[in-house]
Amino acid sequence: MSNKRDLQIIEGGGVATAQGFHAGGVFAGIKTPGEDKYDLGLLYSDRDCAVAGTFSQNSVLSPSVTVTKDVVARGRARAVIANSGCANCAVGKQGLIDAQDAASIGAAELGVDADDVLVASTGVIGVELPMNLIRDHTPRIDVRDGDDAGLEFAKAIMTTDTHPKHIAVRYEASDGSTVTVGGCAKGAGMIHPNMATMLCFISTDADVEQSFLQSTLSDAVTLSFNQIDIDGDQSTNDTVALLANGASGSPRVAGGDEDSERFANAVAYVNRYLAIELARDGEGARHLITAVVEGAGSDVDARKAARSVAASLLVRTAVYGRDPNWGRIMMAVGKTGISLVESKIDIFVNGIQIVHEGKAIAYNVQSVIAALDQPEVELRVDLNCGDGFGEAWGCDLTEEYVVFNSAYTT
Amino acid sequence: MSNKRDLQIIEGGGVATAQGFHAGGVFAGIKTPGEDKYDLGLLYSDRDCAVAGTFSQNSVLSPSVTVTKDVVARGRARAVIANSGCANCAVGKQGLIDAQDAASIGAAELGVDADDVLVASTGVIGVELPMNLIRDHTPRIDVRDGDDAGLEFAKAIMTTDTHPKHIAVRYEASDGSTVTVGGCAKGAGMIHPNMATMLCFISTDADVEQSFLQSTLSDAVTLSFNQIDIDGDQSTNDTVALLANGASGSPRVAGGDEDSERFANAVAYVNRYLAIELARDGEGARHLITAVVEGAGSDVDARKAARSVAASLLVRTAVYGRDPNWGRIMMAVGKTGISLVESKIDIFVNGIQIVHEGKAIAYNVQSVIAALDQPEVELRVDLNCGDGFGEAWGCDLTEEYVVFNSAYTT
Repeated sequence: MSNKRDLQIIEGGGVATAQGFHAGGVFAGIKTPGEDKYDLGLLYSDRDCAVAGTFSQNSVLSPSVTVTKDVVARGRARAVIANSGCANCAVGKQGLIDAQDAASIGAAELGVDADDVLVASTGVIGVELPMNLIRDHTPRIDVRDGDDAGLEFAKAIMTTDTHPKHIAVRYEASDGSTVTVGGCAKGAGMIHPNMATMLCFISTDADVEQSFLQSTLSDAVTLSFNQIDIDGDQSTNDTVALLANGASGSPRVAGGDEDSERFANAVAYVNRYLAIELARDGEGARHLITAVVEGAGSDVDARKAARSVAASLLVRTAVYGRDPNWGRIMMAVGKTGISLVESKIDIFVNGIQIVHEGKAIAYNVQSVIAALDQPEVELRVDLNCGDGFGEAWGCDLTEEYVVFNSAYTT
Repeated sequence: MSNKRDLQIIEGGGVATAQGFHAGGVFAGIKTPGEDKYDLGLLYSDRDCAVAGTFSQNSVLSPSVTVTKDVVARGRARAVIANSGCANCAVGKQGLIDAQDAASIGAAELGVDADDVLVASTGVIGVELPMNLIRDHTPRIDVRDGDDAGLEFAKAIMTTDTHPKHIAVRYEASDGSTVTVGGCAKGAGMIHPNMATMLCFISTDADVEQSFLQSTLSDAVTLSFNQIDIDGDQSTNDTVALLANGASGSPRVAGGDEDSERFANAVAYVNRYLAIELARDGEGARHLITAVVEGAGSDVDARKAARSVAASLLVRTAVYGRDPNWGRIMMAVGKTGISLVESKIDIFVNGIQIVHEGKAIAYNVQSVIAALDQPEVELRVDLNCGDGFGEAWGCDLTEEYVVFNSAYTT
């Protein structure tokens, strides 16, 4: 878990808050127009970055992801060009041509090498990228530094999100210098309709060795975005990328020292914050559900069980209905097949114990219903058989989810 | 796949249609009363049966299942006592005592050994079995042969099913004698709320060697009930049991001959029929969704992909909204991680092709919307890369599902 104590949260911060990072967005007409809408964004670093990434495991993959994976494999990047409104997926050979073309357009605009440009697309599947719009509108993007620039980029990657998600944090390195880690994200997995791509970009002015950057990101994603895969679906375009440009001048980070710990803590915090915001903004959601499993045989077991609880349709509808249906929570934990002893299980809803040693205990039903009425509901399961700890996040399942997703037309 | 040609379907048949099987049910007051309601049933064979079973893999298991697993492990049975309205789960040590007591009550009533009585419970979790009701009302059950008796038993295991599901089939054995296989089932996995137990009992007058009986049942369940696990949840009480009493006098079946093939075909047919009926009767369902995947690298891959399509919330809401959203189907296939070549994928909706070689083709949108308006919707995916075939069944996801499951109170 990340530790907030050593971090300074930067109000309004985002992906262009760290030194040397610039960003911006425009409305290019790729998605349907609307107030304060953006659908094309650029993120730029004024110097070379080490880059790390994690991607969708779906066998059907957007060529935009393919291009980005290649950049990450080379380990060096300078920029990101991202669009919403079109996923550039399932369009045949044209998809890769267009993704490479998008990288070139971004590179030409920013004066960098096309091989150093990540590409991200999200939106409708089966429709080719409107390259003319991207070509015409990329030069209109006002690429600049500052929180407002980062906000524009955050808006440019949104699809059905009700608001942009962004954050930046700072910490003091061992030499007294200040390191910033900022990021933005959109729409989580299956929470959202329309192929529901989950995108996240994080930028930092720390100077980080590439393999440590990758392991730090992978660890953070394991504990955050991988714990909000609400209903097990996985987009063709999911991408989390982390760019580190070293502009802070702080000591190089490569693992095994105090600076590395501070850096990993900041990255974990940003990932966790953004993942939770995605879960909270789930389609039709009224409640953020936090599932906590402790006392499991291992952290892996605990995370598996927590995710099962947060993802269960029966648990999610019960929370929506403010129903303290602990049998559904037991079922969701049990179906993972992790080792447990039924007679040791304790369950708590927002701190109120409702199950002791595997059996219902007398609790004030009105108190629990009131707890379930809070915008944030914590379902905590203590297996009392080990030290394993895990968290996962989701949202309740409402009629609105069904209406929204059945009304959406390709 | 089962072959219907060699089977005679018995109108109104069920679990008491095969020779030597008797059944019946009463309303004991375990669940809320209502017209034509039953909540306690007995199934009885007038002679020893070989018995096979498959059970929930959930780590939290009802002691009723524990008792039944022990009977199946011994391989011999004479009867089943089943109740709805109470799952006998998560009630501590009392659960096993009550399950054993239920077996004894059934055994005393029927004059058989308690070790030969299977126990099945479905309903609310966390509530102890009302043993007084079971003790008082079991003697009231009119245990008799015939389709009407089987229907009573089928009703006695129902919870939120809108109607009982039962079937019987006959085939001619190699010596000209007639063999009957009949069964009934209730509520499929997570389709239904309230822990959603899936129960199925099949009886046959074939004379079957026990290990062949088990492998025949396991194979049939793999292709039927295991392909309708709608949203990945698994009850604490799921049970499929098959009793074979040999009353037909037909040649003994032990695998490797024509009679064995006929028997396995009949068992597969009954399982498949009941599984599809469970999917069709899913909570709030308007459409039965049949997902067919062919041309996969293996049958296992095809079944995995078909199940992913039938279980996807995005696919299920799209069918409800009559939206030919093929991107969601591609996503659901791709997320399983099975081997595929995107540019070879063809997709059909009730026979109308909408995707060719991984890309949308021109189709008449109104025809596809009309196809999606049928009560049965077949989504067929041809991966064109092998001979693997698989089917899975589900239902559309509607607002009613959410309303029903959020309104339910423990």
